[in-house]
Amino acid sequence: MTSSAPFDYQIADLSLAEAGRHQLRLAENEMPGLMALRDEYGASQPLAGARIAGSLHMTVQTAVLIETLVALGAQVRWASCNIYSTQNEAAAAVVVGPEGTIDAPAGVPVFAWKGETLAEYWACTDRIFDWSSESEAAGESWIGPNLILDDGGDATLLVHKGREFEAAGDVPEATDADSEEFSVVLDVLRRSLAASPDRWTRIAGELEGVTEETTTGVHRLYELARSGELLFPAINVNDSVTKSKFDNRYGIRHSLPDGLNRATDVLIGGKVAFVVGYGDVGKGAAEALRGQGARVIVSEVDPICALQAAMDGFQVATLESVADQVDIVITCTGNRAVVRPEHMLAMKHLAIVANVGHFDNEIDMAGLAAIDGVVKLEIKPQVHEWRLPTGRSILVLSEGRLMNLGNATGHPSFVMSNSFANQVLAQIELHERGDRYSTDVHVLPKRLDEKVARLHLDALGVELTSLSPEQAAYIGVPVEGPYKLEHYRY
Amino acid sequence: MTSSAPFDYQIADLSLAEAGRHQLRLAENEMPGLMALRDEYGASQPLAGARIAGSLHMTVQTAVLIETLVALGAQVRWASCNIYSTQNEAAAAVVVGPEGTIDAPAGVPVFAWKGETLAEYWACTDRIFDWSSESEAAGESWIGPNLILDDGGDATLLVHKGREFEAAGDVPEATDADSEEFSVVLDVLRRSLAASPDRWTRIAGELEGVTEETTTGVHRLYELARSGELLFPAINVNDSVTKSKFDNRYGIRHSLPDGLNRATDVLIGGKVAFVVGYGDVGKGAAEALRGQGARVIVSEVDPICALQAAMDGFQVATLESVADQVDIVITCTGNRAVVRPEHMLAMKHLAIVANVGHFDNEIDMAGLAAIDGVVKLEIKPQVHEWRLPTGRSILVLSEGRLMNLGNATGHPSFVMSNSFANQVLAQIELHERGDRYSTDVHVLPKRLDEKVARLHLDALGVELTSLSPEQAAYIGVPVEGPYKLEHYRY
Amino acid sequence: MTSSAPFDYQIADLSLAEAGRHQLRLAENEMPGLMALRDEYGASQPLAGARIAGSLHMTVQTAVLIETLVALGAQVRWASCNIYSTQNEAAAAVVVGPEGTIDAPAGVPVFAWKGETLAEYWACTDRIFDWSSESEAAGESWIGPNLILDDGGDATLLVHKGREFEAAGDVPEATDADSEEFSVVLDVLRRSLAASPDRWTRIAGELEGVTEETTTGVHRLYELARSGELLFPAINVNDSVTKSKFDNRYGIRHSLPDGLNRATDVLIGGKVAFVVGYGDVGKGAAEALRGQGARVIVSEVDPICALQAAMDGFQVATLESVADQVDIVITCTGNRAVVRPEHMLAMKHLAIVANVGHFDNEIDMAGLAAIDGVVKLEIKPQVHEWRLPTGRSILVLSEGRLMNLGNATGHPSFVMSNSFANQVLAQIELHERGDRYSTDVHVLPKRLDEKVARLHLDALGVELTSLSPEQAAYIGVPVEGPYKLEHYRY
Amino acid sequence: MTSSAPFDYQIADLSLAEAGRHQLRLAENEMPGLMALRDEYGASQPLAGARIAGSLHMTVQTAVLIETLVALGAQVRWASCNIYSTQNEAAAAVVVGPEGTIDAPAGVPVFAWKGETLAEYWACTDRIFDWSSESEAAGESWIGPNLILDDGGDATLLVHKGREFEAAGDVPEATDADSEEFSVVLDVLRRSLAASPDRWTRIAGELEGVTEETTTGVHRLYELARSGELLFPAINVNDSVTKSKFDNRYGIRHSLPDGLNRATDVLIGGKVAFVVGYGDVGKGAAEALRGQGARVIVSEVDPICALQAAMDGFQVATLESVADQVDIVITCTGNRAVVRPEHMLAMKHLAIVANVGHFDNEIDMAGLAAIDGVVKLEIKPQVHEWRLPTGRSILVLSEGRLMNLGNATGHPSFVMSNSFANQVLAQIELHERGDRYSTDVHVLPKRLDEKVARLHLDALGVELTSLSPEQAAYIGVPVEGPYKLEHYRY
Repeated sequence: MTSSAPFDYQIADLSLAEAGRHQLRLAENEMPGLMALRDEYGASQPLAGARIAGSLHMTVQTAVLIETLVALGAQVRWASCNIYSTQNEAAAAVVVGPEGTIDAPAGVPVFAWKGETLAEYWACTDRIFDWSSESEAAGESWIGPNLILDDGGDATLLVHKGREFEAAGDVPEATDADSEEFSVVLDVLRRSLAASPDRWTRIAGELEGVTEETTTGVHRLYELARSGELLFPAINVNDSVTKSKFDNRYGIRHSLPDGLNRATDVLIGGKVAFVVGYGDVGKGAAEALRGQGARVIVSEVDPICALQAAMDGFQVATLESVADQVDIVITCTGNRAVVRPEHMLAMKHLAIVANVGHFDNEIDMAGLAAIDGVVKLEIKPQVHEWRLPTGRSILVLSEGRLMNLGNATGHPSFVMSNSFANQVLAQIELHERGDRYSTDVHVLPKRLDEKVARLHLDALGVELTSLSPEQAAYIGVPVEGPYKLEHYRY
Repeated sequence: MTSSAPFDYQIADLSLAEAGRHQLRLAENEMPGLMALRDEYGASQPLAGARIAGSLHMTVQTAVLIETLVALGAQVRWASCNIYSTQNEAAAAVVVGPEGTIDAPAGVPVFAWKGETLAEYWACTDRIFDWSSESEAAGESWIGPNLILDDGGDATLLVHKGREFEAAGDVPEATDADSEEFSVVLDVLRRSLAASPDRWTRIAGELEGVTEETTTGVHRLYELARSGELLFPAINVNDSVTKSKFDNRYGIRHSLPDGLNRATDVLIGGKVAFVVGYGDVGKGAAEALRGQGARVIVSEVDPICALQAAMDGFQVATLESVADQVDIVITCTGNRAVVRPEHMLAMKHLAIVANVGHFDNEIDMAGLAAIDGVVKLEIKPQVHEWRLPTGRSILVLSEGRLMNLGNATGHPSFVMSNSFANQVLAQIELHERGDRYSTDVHVLPKRLDEKVARLHLDALGVELTSLSPEQAAYIGVPVEGPYKLEHYRY
Repeated sequence: MTSSAPFDYQIADLSLAEAGRHQLRLAENEMPGLMALRDEYGASQPLAGARIAGSLHMTVQTAVLIETLVALGAQVRWASCNIYSTQNEAAAAVVVGPEGTIDAPAGVPVFAWKGETLAEYWACTDRIFDWSSESEAAGESWIGPNLILDDGGDATLLVHKGREFEAAGDVPEATDADSEEFSVVLDVLRRSLAASPDRWTRIAGELEGVTEETTTGVHRLYELARSGELLFPAINVNDSVTKSKFDNRYGIRHSLPDGLNRATDVLIGGKVAFVVGYGDVGKGAAEALRGQGARVIVSEVDPICALQAAMDGFQVATLESVADQVDIVITCTGNRAVVRPEHMLAMKHLAIVANVGHFDNEIDMAGLAAIDGVVKLEIKPQVHEWRLPTGRSILVLSEGRLMNLGNATGHPSFVMSNSFANQVLAQIELHERGDRYSTDVHVLPKRLDEKVARLHLDALGVELTSLSPEQAAYIGVPVEGPYKLEHYRY
Repeated sequence: MTSSAPFDYQIADLSLAEAGRHQLRLAENEMPGLMALRDEYGASQPLAGARIAGSLHMTVQTAVLIETLVALGAQVRWASCNIYSTQNEAAAAVVVGPEGTIDAPAGVPVFAWKGETLAEYWACTDRIFDWSSESEAAGESWIGPNLILDDGGDATLLVHKGREFEAAGDVPEATDADSEEFSVVLDVLRRSLAASPDRWTRIAGELEGVTEETTTGVHRLYELARSGELLFPAINVNDSVTKSKFDNRYGIRHSLPDGLNRATDVLIGGKVAFVVGYGDVGKGAAEALRGQGARVIVSEVDPICALQAAMDGFQVATLESVADQVDIVITCTGNRAVVRPEHMLAMKHLAIVANVGHFDNEIDMAGLAAIDGVVKLEIKPQVHEWRLPTGRSILVLSEGRLMNLGNATGHPSFVMSNSFANQVLAQIELHERGDRYSTDVHVLPKRLDEKVARLHLDALGVELTSLSPEQAAYIGVPVEGPYKLEHYRY
């Protein structure tokens, strides 16, 4: 893993770069939003001077994002935000860069590989904040990143916790109440504090803000803002319409059946599929499964979403009432323990259980493992048969983690082009107009949301209609948009 | 139209009451939200003391709403908000009331019949503000309404304009810039001012607020609020999720094909249908037409909605580029002149053109009528063939007005039960907790929106899942809801 | 009902002709198959000399069929094949004819009106075989029809039974085992025998054959053929692909929701709909209901169709197991008593029960009426509430008869254009090439079936691909078709 | 590849047997038809004495078929019918057998591995007819197979050609008109003739018949029957409803998007997909693509299928008229050159072209390779970018061969359970009741077709309705079926 690159990096195998480049080239064709931003902003370099610490699944699509940020003038260091989600060939291609070679990488420092340990993961996250090689190259004594591009909030967490402990002068020991993962975080910060008493304080001081990709990360940001602990402005990319309504719904519609197929090859048609939760993700899941001929049953806690499911023609029931009839169970909630041992014990033999919601506690994996007499058997990587004391088995995908990442390849490029075009525009906002953003959580203005959509229309052959000035005046909007009130629900 | 009723009313034919009562009884079965509110609030009478001036299509569904308001303690006077939309048998049933007879009506004063002139329409609207018979019955010198339930804002307009002219001491003459309809309004107010110099001022002073049903009315209210002219609190019922997402989408999904069928009996399957606008109404229209086997093409001005249409599998094109291929054109925009003479001249012979958006200028009917040599021929009521100078004809439904009202029977009861349960809850809010509402435009709190949904689940056999306290805490919501942030888009 | 027409006829109201003509003109635009046959064969007059006795629902679409037969040279006399299905304005338009006036009708003798008694119905059927006015006009002593166009086989039955009894020299008395309707048939034939001992024998001798429209009629024909009683060649139009797969499936997809809406205005979305039978009709019904957002449950006796339903994503269950959960029950079987009193007693209050299969015994109406304490209440014509001793009611449409005819307007024109183009081609086959057809039941050759389809493509904007000679040779078919083996299932 | 097995075999890697066995176990759960046949016939051993030469893709599903045949008493030798389609772990598991071990295989002789040469392929096919080790074990001087289970007709071809050349006493040299593959066949037969002058004649004499899986093989059989060359009875399994309507339609619905996803990860939603041919395969393809949110355009040569496509809501156009707008092109015809160089040259950059129809000439791969200046670039196995002289590229999957086999894993187990249950029943028919079958091509009786469907209902939770004797009599079918006339189209 050493090479003659003029920068540090840590990936699985640099020789995968060419294979990765092929995939990047194909992905670029599917990411018209990012490519259009390169065209529009390549000359003006709005991200010149931006030093971005990026923490987001190191996939082919993210590679196109990274190279777009670079094309707009940014310097970038990158880690993945999940121990399993890195595509090693994408990481290699990014390190080598479009102009570099395996012998002379000329890309971006990446710290990510598929199958990191938790310790490795947090070490990688730490390294996107270590800009010493860039300092050296620039002849500066110290520079840090001035922007974070985050997915799930781990990079943001590290800065906040690091600064907090530096202020306290001490990193506490992990307690029993802390998760195993948090004790790893504490270890990282303890080493950092030992090496430098004000590193995170300096970094926090430099940061112009963070742009956050997902619900979970956004949730953490709102909590920090509420408690007054937030250290810099944050842009909630997740709640752009072109992110949440596209990535969540259309992304899952694509990647859920893909993951099921790669994992099990089981015919979806004719099966009874149970979708836990009918938010955007659940709506996409239900549509995909119905589109393949499954009979879909939905569960919901929110009466509005439950009514939507009924009006869309789905049976709405609790999992406990139909667990013995379902062949496929998909969790789409972001909540915990929505599939529990009592459900799994009641299921049909070889029922498939998988999660496209969020964390691996959405299916109570710990509860499953604790069932007396349960036996776990690997069918193939990310596909396990759990033999239950009932004599029946269930199949659990990706160990209860996100199966669209673990068993498939995540959201496809076109969907990510929407999300990532929002990210790029958000980074430009913070870098160019950061003074307009208070230390709070912001959503992108609707005109940028509409712009992102607009960048994706040509590729699909969409012909947009223009408002006449009279029509625009009649409904009280500018001819060029934005066209809707803030609370419009799409 | 005279009878021994202890109140004044003006309707088409009281003898239709029994037929209307049959329909009310069936509708009650389809309006579980309203019936549940009667059960929940019948004893506590939260609307005791409420005197409601209602202006909303006098249909069977509205009849169930009116009798629900009465069951909760309100006194009510009612007019329709559209000259064509009254169902005469519903009006008759409401006047007779559930306990009355044709000889001894014991219901509610209604002023509405199908096919009013504009002068009759505004006279009816005026009469819902004339509570002299109620004053007399109560032995009071004068009482006025203290609540408005409005659809489109005509009742609200009358109060605002009336008070404005009373303040000025004069009602101006209509100018050329005024619409024909506004000159009728001026006539009504001129007569009122002659009869009483402070009638509207007194009424405005009594009003606890208005609850408004539709986009157009809400739009007017926001303008009044912005300009500081709004006289009392307003609740925007339109933007409850259980209204806008249900009434607009699922209502149109039902009533659009119904109207097409009743008007034309043309097979929808295999046809090319063009849907102008892909908001909630357009989404419902496109789903309905596809569900009947049509090939649907959509047009949009908003790139986000355009991208949604593409992701939902629809071709997105301008009407001008495909006008010569389409068999059915449906407008769903709320904008003006989205179908224009140049489009209509290009269409196939006997293409069907109809509006489910809003006003009759959505299709440029004036422009159509002004085409040189055009001939209009009535095929049957609300269905006209327009013979064009090209030698081809088009079929225009309901004179370009809302065809789901004109050619079908409007939204079905179950959909209206959602909208109207919001109306009832909004009326209760203003009457019981009006002091919490400033003189501004408000939406109902999300807990009430969720409540409305909840009231409709049992009827559909929906089994709702409950959050455990741990789950509720995990996602940071109360166990009993509300479950979503305000900006959630559903 | 007298006029100066040079022929006899019996209809409801000749003055409806103009209204009917409007509808015919619109229908012609939706019946491209029939209009294309007029273009193709108008000059060559292949039906010159054809004298057609037609017995088929006297609707607007049938009117276009009749005028197509006339345009191809035929003489025609017409009755309806159902006591309720006549559209009086269509009958009037046909009598007046495209060139005639109300004062001087110049069309076709029709004997049909909406709401015939059984005695009237069979008298009308008798009159299509009485060509005395045509004999007179032609200066012949006697002529009879030489072709039957039949729907359900009543006209064919009359000839067969008439000839049988003439051979026996006596018409038997009705026995207890005979239906009420058959005793009416016996009365008609008894009168005929009294008037002429060989009328039916002569008619049978003249007949070149019959073309039969429906499953039931075809079923009777196969029975006659099997028992050796069939008197002349028969063409089974029902089993042309462009009939059975289009009329049954796409016709019902259209007319089922139309009938439900006109009858009840009940929102279909969110409801639980039960479809009895998953043949072509059931498939169309299920698709229509799902397309409107209902949750559809299917029942089947045939395991292949049951498996298809499951693979299409529908729950498959017996009616008895879910009767208490369903809101709408639609019978699509052609069998008897598929919905029985025990089912109806278990249903939800105001569940809707309707038949699009075949006879009115598909729902056991007699069993329903025999329930102790049941009360039948007319809500409006063709919509009845049956109050059950359980305290619940059900709504039965069209008295259990075909609701797409009784509550809606039957199959739309475009669908009927397919069926009727087959009828016209079948009549031409029998008239021109009758000698090639043995006294048996035949289906139309596949090339004619494909021709019918071809005639309908332009109207839908369909662009057909042509086989190259190499491609045709490669798959072993002629370039111009037919393209499939006989057993191909489409 | 040697082991202590008491039989000969030739596969890639015996050590894959355990992995294969896992997959077989899961597949058994998805193949209820085959497992039910084991239950029903395991005791009676209807295939005792059957010696089956099987030539069918050596996949996991086929492994379950093979072990079912064995469970019913048969002896089996197996080859694949395609050089690429063998799943090596399935082959290994079959050789080892459910009771055997890698050290002591106790299964079935298999001759198949992924990536055979043509010479290897035909040598393997030859070896399924070489029962010398079985002869030896049985102490017989010579035994041959008495049944063929064929897919595509290669095994049948070998017997027919072998016998023909033995009769002629000579195997001709390949001529220029012969394909490369046929010259390999001639080589195999020349060696056989040299070794034994009557081997194929003896085999043909022993054969009770063949059961054939696919359209192509069936086509060959009908040609042999027509020309009087057919040597033994053949059962056309392909045209069982539970085969052609399930395998073709529902199988492709599943495996087409699976193959697209594994090959390209391109978002299907929003794309324009072009489906060439709207037979059963095309119907499944169109449904799958629409279910993923693509806009689907269909082409057809048969006007009936074209009309079906239009009625199902699809645009029907020629490929040449829209080639420049399509993102994905799928061939589903079984014909040749339906996608030609002129189409490919007109397509969008990186348009995806793939075949789920039949041979690799369906896309004119030879024509593509012959384009001046074209460059072929492997993106990954079975995915090639073809750079065209226009500067654009297209992506071709699986070299133009069946992409659902090459890029995905073929039809899923449940679908194959239907096809293969037909195969098993057909083998039993020939073995037990072969005397009832003339030397011709037969389809399975409808009662067996219905039986196959019936065996798959429980697994899907389908509740079948039973006919009462009265109902069965009313429609004239036995209570237990078969329920439909032969020509019924489902």
